[in-house]
Amino acid sequence: TVGTVYLVGAGPGDPDLLTLRAARLLERAEVVVHDGLVDRAVLALAARDAQMISVAKRRAHHTLPQEAICELLVREARKGRAVVRLKGGDPFIFGRGGEEAEACRAAGVPVEIVPGISAANGAAAATGIALTHRDAASVVSFVAGQCKGLSDQDWAGLAGKGRTLVIYMGVKTAPRIAEKLMADGLAPDMPLAVIENACRPAMRVLRGPLAALPELVARESVKSPALIVIGEVTARDDAQVAALAAEAAE
Amino acid sequence: TVGTVYLVGAGPGDPDLLTLRAARLLERAEVVVHDGLVDRAVLALAARDAQMISVAKRRAHHTLPQEAICELLVREARKGRAVVRLKGGDPFIFGRGGEEAEACRAAGVPVEIVPGISAANGAAAATGIALTHRDAASVVSFVAGQCKGLSDQDWAGLAGKGRTLVIYMGVKTAPRIAEKLMADGLAPDMPLAVIENACRPAMRVLRGPLAALPELVARESVKSPALIVIGEVTARDDAQVAALAAEAAE
Repeated sequence: TVGTVYLVGAGPGDPDLLTLRAARLLERAEVVVHDGLVDRAVLALAARDAQMISVAKRRAHHTLPQEAICELLVREARKGRAVVRLKGGDPFIFGRGGEEAEACRAAGVPVEIVPGISAANGAAAATGIALTHRDAASVVSFVAGQCKGLSDQDWAGLAGKGRTLVIYMGVKTAPRIAEKLMADGLAPDMPLAVIENACRPAMRVLRGPLAALPELVARESVKSPALIVIGEVTARDDAQVAALAAEAAE
Repeated sequence: TVGTVYLVGAGPGDPDLLTLRAARLLERAEVVVHDGLVDRAVLALAARDAQMISVAKRRAHHTLPQEAICELLVREARKGRAVVRLKGGDPFIFGRGGEEAEACRAAGVPVEIVPGISAANGAAAATGIALTHRDAASVVSFVAGQCKGLSDQDWAGLAGKGRTLVIYMGVKTAPRIAEKLMADGLAPDMPLAVIENACRPAMRVLRGPLAALPELVARESVKSPALIVIGEVTARDDAQVAALAAEAAE
């Protein structure tokens, strides 16, 4: 009999942010196929005798080709094994989970998808930045700075008044991102936050206006994983809280 | 001493989709303040002697006023109790968690935010609809059909080629949503999926073109909670899988 492939979201880093379902599947896994974004503390939850296979980016290759990962999942499942394919965040938010699920279904391999806390939701909770807010944002959008060619992507209108834009994997292309958004008409003083290592002990939050993004990332040597959150919600901090406190004291 | 308020995402319905952190906090809670979207099976995980306070919508009142909820959280924490404020999905995606966090901070009450699987991520996993996909969508946006006045909201450009739009709480306003999106230039034949009771045993998935949304919702008597997912990702189903299967068989 063919085993099942479980496409499992590993969440943003902190193992406490795995779902109960994900933790249980990891405990029972016979094979765990994971990429580099998954934290060691999460991998430590896997069954002791599970075979761990990393498909992390290598220095020489950009990454293990997606087709090879799909083939690996199908091959392992056909051995009759329970395969947990562990992906950072959520499998269907910039995780290429769609391609892997399609490959399994096409090969007749049963697949179950287990959602995970995406980096944006984890970073928002960890920093206290509400992605939507009755007074500040009724739209939130997610894009990826390295998903496809940046210049091929159309982000017009995704950021601005009443809208929050979260950019995944945007550290390396930060200067071009700032340029692109300003060319689309976004105000240079639109506030933003860069969140490095969200939901991990080494988390850092940096803030500034859009125009200063390239300098901020360079000066602070921001490294992946990091998210860029752009919009008024990133500026609802001490000033507003102080105002509320004053109100409450009246 | 003042207790802590934990703003906890309860996920999309299935208790297995709670995070480990959320489950542990529920087990230790002294007071649980929850709204109507939280599933009974999730509430059943709370400590036996925890005081359960519902702030669900009542028939007469639209909802317990947000200010009253904020005051309740602060008051309970000031009694020195551990307060779990349980919200459907994720606290910072249309959960008004931002306002509650701000109210706590303004009152000097410590607050911790625990992210949850948002309905969109849960529904995507349960149906196999990838919200982003290398070949079909590099942008995903979330909006709410009843968040503010629908006509006050600007959704232009959020849906279309290469973009996925997820509409929360859009069942009641479905006819106006279809009209609004088509007035913004979206093609009447843009595919969509309506997902009712995502991640619950009674889940239903209905599909059709944008122009047929009002009729679909009316004919099938779709009820809340339901999500509307609009974009090409909702049509990557049997046709593509069949093609992949044919390829694989060669």
